[in-house]
Amino acid sequence: MGKRNNRPLILVTNDDGYKSKGISKLTEIAMTFGDVLVMSATESQSGKSHSITIKDPIRYKLIDDTPEFRRYILKGTPVDGVKLATCSLLDRKPDLLLSGVNHGTNSSTSVVYSGTMAAAIEGAIHHIPSLGFSLLDYRPDADFDAAEPFVKQIISNTLEKGLPEGTCLNVNIPAVPREQIRGIRVCRQTNGYWKEQFDIREDPRGANYSWLTGSFFNREPESQDTDEWALQNNYLAVVPVKTDFTDYELLGNMEEWETTRTGDETKS
Amino acid sequence: MGKRNNRPLILVTNDDGYKSKGISKLTEIAMTFGDVLVMSATESQSGKSHSITIKDPIRYKLIDDTPEFRRYILKGTPVDGVKLATCSLLDRKPDLLLSGVNHGTNSSTSVVYSGTMAAAIEGAIHHIPSLGFSLLDYRPDADFDAAEPFVKQIISNTLEKGLPEGTCLNVNIPAVPREQIRGIRVCRQTNGYWKEQFDIREDPRGANYSWLTGSFFNREPESQDTDEWALQNNYLAVVPVKTDFTDYELLGNMEEWETTRTGDETKS
Repeated sequence: MGKRNNRPLILVTNDDGYKSKGISKLTEIAMTFGDVLVMSATESQSGKSHSITIKDPIRYKLIDDTPEFRRYILKGTPVDGVKLATCSLLDRKPDLLLSGVNHGTNSSTSVVYSGTMAAAIEGAIHHIPSLGFSLLDYRPDADFDAAEPFVKQIISNTLEKGLPEGTCLNVNIPAVPREQIRGIRVCRQTNGYWKEQFDIREDPRGANYSWLTGSFFNREPESQDTDEWALQNNYLAVVPVKTDFTDYELLGNMEEWETTRTGDETKS
Repeated sequence: MGKRNNRPLILVTNDDGYKSKGISKLTEIAMTFGDVLVMSATESQSGKSHSITIKDPIRYKLIDDTPEFRRYILKGTPVDGVKLATCSLLDRKPDLLLSGVNHGTNSSTSVVYSGTMAAAIEGAIHHIPSLGFSLLDYRPDADFDAAEPFVKQIISNTLEKGLPEGTCLNVNIPAVPREQIRGIRVCRQTNGYWKEQFDIREDPRGANYSWLTGSFFNREPESQDTDEWALQNNYLAVVPVKTDFTDYELLGNMEEWETTRTGDETKS
């Protein structure tokens, strides 16, 4: 794949399952740029983050097979799928990885829970230019057409300019009609968190269980350089995401944490 | 808990399940510093990363309850457990979160797959000083005693100096006898990846399945400021891990990716 006419080879994945509207749209867009391999789970993998399947086998099946379009479905996580495609099913490294379009936001801290972004982060770990897309609308029939020209522009930019090795992009899309989208903003990850309200119950046999529900809390609603601000102002928010999580600022100030056997401090 | 004599309140969790030797050791150490709430899964959650349980209820049970020690077991992921403890079961924020000691490495890129580190990252998102500990020995009966004085020192440092909000520590421990441990090194995350060798098979009904196996590949074996180097040289490796994944270096060079409706570039 992707060798005819030097077309880019594009791996498309998501975490909502292969039947979702979001991956259909992203696949359609991807095919205007290159040859496409779709790898998607048979069922939703929302909230699976960077999970990998260690104890069970990963089942997969080829369901479409043409020179420019191959599609696999798998029983596994988004990251399993990226690994299976890149390390086993493809004979060369994809030129681009596209994940999504997710049904629902992955802005701010949600990046850590997201299967959509985990697939993009996995791509970046393997030095594949990788983009995760999420629309701020959870509904199965959400409108994925409105932002199409902007999504295409971000893909064009990536193919043209590339991305640094080990960095991917987290692209969130406001759920508004096209004429209300104000453009693309490059942002930093908003400082925020999900505050859980556990719905604690007792089952008929007296055992405790709880449903996880929560709401997002923005610690810096006034900051205008964040992804949350961009989205609230109807911009697509593009956050460059590193796979090196080291806090270099703190690292430079931790000399006193170090000990060596020649010093006295470890002799306690 | 933790209010008697102003003792710190410490949340202890892991991803190997509540019966593992690693969490027993960490709990024992934690109790020398403060009052302890243990929240651990009934079964191993290895490779679960930052997964949260959305579609199923989270079951939990209190199995120990004294003024200085409470223990819950849960059917859920490490991050579910941190959320449940901090947002629901505790009446105040813990002074410290300890995750582990994991049976097996979480150095370098493994931080993204690790349930142990996900729990610590979740703590850091909620501004709890959080430490993840992992021993480079996967065996159930691994020796968690050798590094005890070093683990205690890192905990002491954290209680004394604190950590910046939004940053936790990833502590990996070499699997060598105490007399061979050379000390503690503060490091950056090694640039590396897991290269998967998929073991592709066909089941008796002709369907494909695959087992995920792989080996770690270090892209910078010569670098001496990395966690991999420290571990290979018998140091405990301490990597400060940020929950803000933004690539600020790239962010500063992406002006040309931005568009606004007033410009021509979005009119395509």
